[in-house]
Amino acid sequence: MRRAEELRDAVEAYLRSLTFAPELGALEPALRYSLESEGKRIRPVLCLAVVEAAGGDVEHGLPAAAALELVHTFSLVHDDLPALDDDAERRGRPSAHVVFGEGVGLLAGDALLAEAVRLALAYDDPAIARELVTATLGMIGGQYRDITGDDDDLAELHELKTGRLFAASVGLGLEVAGVADPDQAPWRAFGAQIGLLFQIVDDILDGDGFAARLPAGEVKRLADETAEMTRAQLERIPAETSVLAELVDAVAFRTL
Amino acid sequence: MRRAEELRDAVEAYLRSLTFAPELGALEPALRYSLESEGKRIRPVLCLAVVEAAGGDVEHGLPAAAALELVHTFSLVHDDLPALDDDAERRGRPSAHVVFGEGVGLLAGDALLAEAVRLALAYDDPAIARELVTATLGMIGGQYRDITGDDDDLAELHELKTGRLFAASVGLGLEVAGVADPDQAPWRAFGAQIGLLFQIVDDILDGDGFAARLPAGEVKRLADETAEMTRAQLERIPAETSVLAELVDAVAFRTL
Repeated sequence: MRRAEELRDAVEAYLRSLTFAPELGALEPALRYSLESEGKRIRPVLCLAVVEAAGGDVEHGLPAAAALELVHTFSLVHDDLPALDDDAERRGRPSAHVVFGEGVGLLAGDALLAEAVRLALAYDDPAIARELVTATLGMIGGQYRDITGDDDDLAELHELKTGRLFAASVGLGLEVAGVADPDQAPWRAFGAQIGLLFQIVDDILDGDGFAARLPAGEVKRLADETAEMTRAQLERIPAETSVLAELVDAVAFRTL
Repeated sequence: MRRAEELRDAVEAYLRSLTFAPELGALEPALRYSLESEGKRIRPVLCLAVVEAAGGDVEHGLPAAAALELVHTFSLVHDDLPALDDDAERRGRPSAHVVFGEGVGLLAGDALLAEAVRLALAYDDPAIARELVTATLGMIGGQYRDITGDDDDLAELHELKTGRLFAASVGLGLEVAGVADPDQAPWRAFGAQIGLLFQIVDDILDGDGFAARLPAGEVKRLADETAEMTRAQLERIPAETSVLAELVDAVAFRTL
């Protein structure tokens, strides 16, 4: 069984080897620039760790894992545009729209989403693309609530904006590994939990969201409790989940 | 066999009846606003006319037809943004971003693309979604060439930006009707031709593209010749193609 670090290396190698639609022409460097900056790759690694824990073939899971990272990258590229968050930096480098211009940034985001779907459609079973697209729509709904300040229900906003793609990371892994529907429940409960954990830790690191609404001690306790619940969910999965446990720690302590 | 006008009515009714992902929440009105403005619906009508001419069931073709219109609308909503064409009007009404704001316009375009794919994934056969997504990537490549002024090869730019989605309108119709691959060639040749015809007439109406590069008499002759070639392609299709002939006239004379 491969450790998380090895899975991340496999993701990086696969992302670098991706060929995009030739029709994109000179737009391609803007996609690669956004995709190849050093991200944590937590979603694709989570997907592959689920594939392996569920007895599937990691190589077979690479297109699904990459599709998740492309959807995440599409959302970052569009989020950074002046029309949304207007962020000039991303992952320690100038944002795509700063380097390539706003129009190219917009089109690069569109192309990343379309390429993500194309990767998910590499499988014979359309269920994989369906789950990815449904998660993407949930994520967009979360982004909408975020930019319009509709954040009274912060848990719902997080569940959409962050949680859906985490849940799909687990879900796509299950589909790739061919886990039967009735057996998916404990895995999916874990997927919902680790997405929430990621978001709470993110809020602590960024000083917003839950961290802006709760006293420091309380938000730290919330993070610890959520990490405990995530580990407890993992215990309920009848499989060898040591790599997934490693990922929970990486999310909780942000070591990945 | 239904006339083009009846097919358009069926498309309009289906678009009005569409339910979007509930997670989109209050973003939905921005999608409906963009989608329900009175467009020509030429792509979905073309798709349904192919379905019917090829012996398929028009009702079964409606999700594919709607998916084509959603991709087209996504491209218009993003094209109109200040980052691209900065158009304040579309189809005689204020553009989506003027009504809803830039950020919401951006997210509404993203959601339209994702919803389009979801519609195409309503079919068991992933080939329909694959063809839609490949056409979308070609279209984005054309938009990129357009905004960066890479238009030395105007025919290639048109073939990507407009032609690919027209070709997919025919292609999705063939897939829905279950036309076997070896029998698709004359239909697909027609699809490429009607897309070119649409673009040449569009250039004449807008005074740009071919119309800006050729003397008026010459561009008119080019349009007439292309219309003739499109009708000739139609003759090669072994089916009752009177509704498709009606569509060629509608595109040539812009009566639809």
